[in-house]
Amino acid sequence: MELWYTEDHSRGAKFSLKVEKQLYSGKSDFQRIDVFETEEFGKFFTLDGLVMITEKDEFIYHDMIVHVPMATNPKIRKVLVIGAGDGGTVRELVRYPEIESIDMVEIDELVVEVCKAYFPKSTSGFADPRVTLYFEDGLKFVQEKVDAYDLIIVDSTDPIGPGEGLFTREFYQNCHRALTKDGILVNQHESPFYDHYAKAMQRAHQRIRESFPIAKVYQVHIPTYASGHWLFGFASKTFDPVADLDAHAWNQRGLETGYYNTDIHQGAFALPNYVKKLLEEA
Amino acid sequence: MELWYTEDHSRGAKFSLKVEKQLYSGKSDFQRIDVFETEEFGKFFTLDGLVMITEKDEFIYHDMIVHVPMATNPKIRKVLVIGAGDGGTVRELVRYPEIESIDMVEIDELVVEVCKAYFPKSTSGFADPRVTLYFEDGLKFVQEKVDAYDLIIVDSTDPIGPGEGLFTREFYQNCHRALTKDGILVNQHESPFYDHYAKAMQRAHQRIRESFPIAKVYQVHIPTYASGHWLFGFASKTFDPVADLDAHAWNQRGLETGYYNTDIHQGAFALPNYVKKLLEEA
Repeated sequence: MELWYTEDHSRGAKFSLKVEKQLYSGKSDFQRIDVFETEEFGKFFTLDGLVMITEKDEFIYHDMIVHVPMATNPKIRKVLVIGAGDGGTVRELVRYPEIESIDMVEIDELVVEVCKAYFPKSTSGFADPRVTLYFEDGLKFVQEKVDAYDLIIVDSTDPIGPGEGLFTREFYQNCHRALTKDGILVNQHESPFYDHYAKAMQRAHQRIRESFPIAKVYQVHIPTYASGHWLFGFASKTFDPVADLDAHAWNQRGLETGYYNTDIHQGAFALPNYVKKLLEEA
Repeated sequence: MELWYTEDHSRGAKFSLKVEKQLYSGKSDFQRIDVFETEEFGKFFTLDGLVMITEKDEFIYHDMIVHVPMATNPKIRKVLVIGAGDGGTVRELVRYPEIESIDMVEIDELVVEVCKAYFPKSTSGFADPRVTLYFEDGLKFVQEKVDAYDLIIVDSTDPIGPGEGLFTREFYQNCHRALTKDGILVNQHESPFYDHYAKAMQRAHQRIRESFPIAKVYQVHIPTYASGHWLFGFASKTFDPVADLDAHAWNQRGLETGYYNTDIHQGAFALPNYVKKLLEEA
C-alpha cells in the first residue's frame, strides 16, 4: 500500500509527499489541521490542506524569517510574532540573549497544542520565560499597540481563510504604528512563479510600500512550498537590510544555522528580473 | 478527462504537470523522448521520463548557464557547448557579437530534430552562422582538443544514462586541457536538497576541484526541477566569477534577460550553510 499526500501548487502543477501514516486530524474554529509522518521529510502538518512545515526543511523558513532582521538591527529588544503556531520562529528568536520580550499572537490555540504534541523540536522556544502566548486575532492585537515593538514578524498562512486580514492595508498601517522609531516588519510574502501566488505577492508589496519608507523583498529556496521559490518582505522605518548589515558583528555571535549566513543575507535581496518587474508593476 | 505527467523527485516526493495532450513520443539509440503540451507551462519535453525544459521556465536555466561566464570574462571568443540539444544555451550565446565560434556537440541528433520541430523559440540560435553542430560523443570530442576554447558549457542530463561520462574525472581533465589559459568551465551541477541529487552534486564538485584551481558553485530557482533549488558549477583557470565581474560593462550591453542581472550573478554564489557543508565534505 502507498499513501500520498498531494497539494495543488497551481492550476497545472501538483506536489506529492509519500506518507507512512496520518498521525492526527482535527478541526478548530478556524481551520482543519492534519499531521503526517513520512520517511524522507520527517513529520509535517497541513492547515486546510496546505503544507505548513516539514521537519526536513522548516529550518530554511525559520532561519530566513528571523536572522535577517535580527542581524540587520542588533538593538532589537521587543518582538511581536503573529501566527507562527508551529513555534519555529520563536525557537530562533530565543537564541538572542538581548531580546527582552517576545509576544506571540496566534489565532488558533489548537495549532499550538498539536505542534507541541508532534513537533517538540520546533516548539522548544515556547518554554522560554521571555515568551508570552496570546490566543487572539493578530489584527486586533496590533491595533491597540503604539511604539511598542522593535520587530514584528508576520509568519502567516496564505491570504485565504484566517490569514486574509494579515495582508491588508489597514493591518500594515497598524504595524507601522505599533513599531518603534527604528522598527522592522518582516512577513511571509508568497511566491513569484505561479500566477495566484504572484498576485498575492504583488498586492502585499503594494500595500506595504504605502506604509513603510523602506520596503524590500528577499528570496529563499524552500523545496516543499509551491515552486520552491519563496519570498519574505522586509519593511522598515530606517534600516536597510543590505547596507546596514554588520556581518562581522553577527558572525561574532557564533550562532549555528543550517541555511542563514551573512553572505546569503545579502545575496537573497538580489532578485531575478522577472520578480523585480512583478514588484515594480505592483 | 485529466492527463497528468508525474516525475519522481526523490523516493518520497513527486511532481506532476497537467497535460493537454502528448505531441510526440520517440526513441533514439540513446534515450526516449516525449513532448507534451500544457496550458500553464507551454510545451515541455522529457528524456527518459525526466523534464528537460518547459517553455515557462527554461529562460531561468539558460540565462544562468550562459550570462554568468559571459559577464565574468568579456574576452570569450571560442565556445564549446556539450549537450544542450534543446538549443536554449546556444540561443543565449549568439546574443554576444564578440563570440567568433560556437561548437555544439550533442550525442543525440533526434533531440535536436524534435526540439527544432516543437520548440522554435529555444532553437532559433542554431541558424546563426557561427554555430556548428556535431552529433558526436562529447567525451571523445573534447579529448582531442588542446587550448581550443575560452568557455566550455556542459549542459547535460543527470549522471545516469547518456550524461554519465560528463561527470567523470577524466572528462573534467580533458576540459581543462581543451581550454585556453583563461578558460572557464560551467556545468549543470544537480541539486543539494534530495539525497541522490546531492550525492551527484558532491561527486561532481570533488572531481572538478581536482582539475581546476577555481571551482565554485552557484544556485538558481528552477521551479520545474527537483526541489526547485538547482546548482551550476563555475570552474576556471584564472577568473573568479564574483571578484572579476565587471557589472558596469555587462549592463552597458543592454541585453534584456528574464532572470539574470549582475546583482543576482553575485548573489547566486552565496550558498546556504547546509549546501556549503555538503560541498566541503565532498
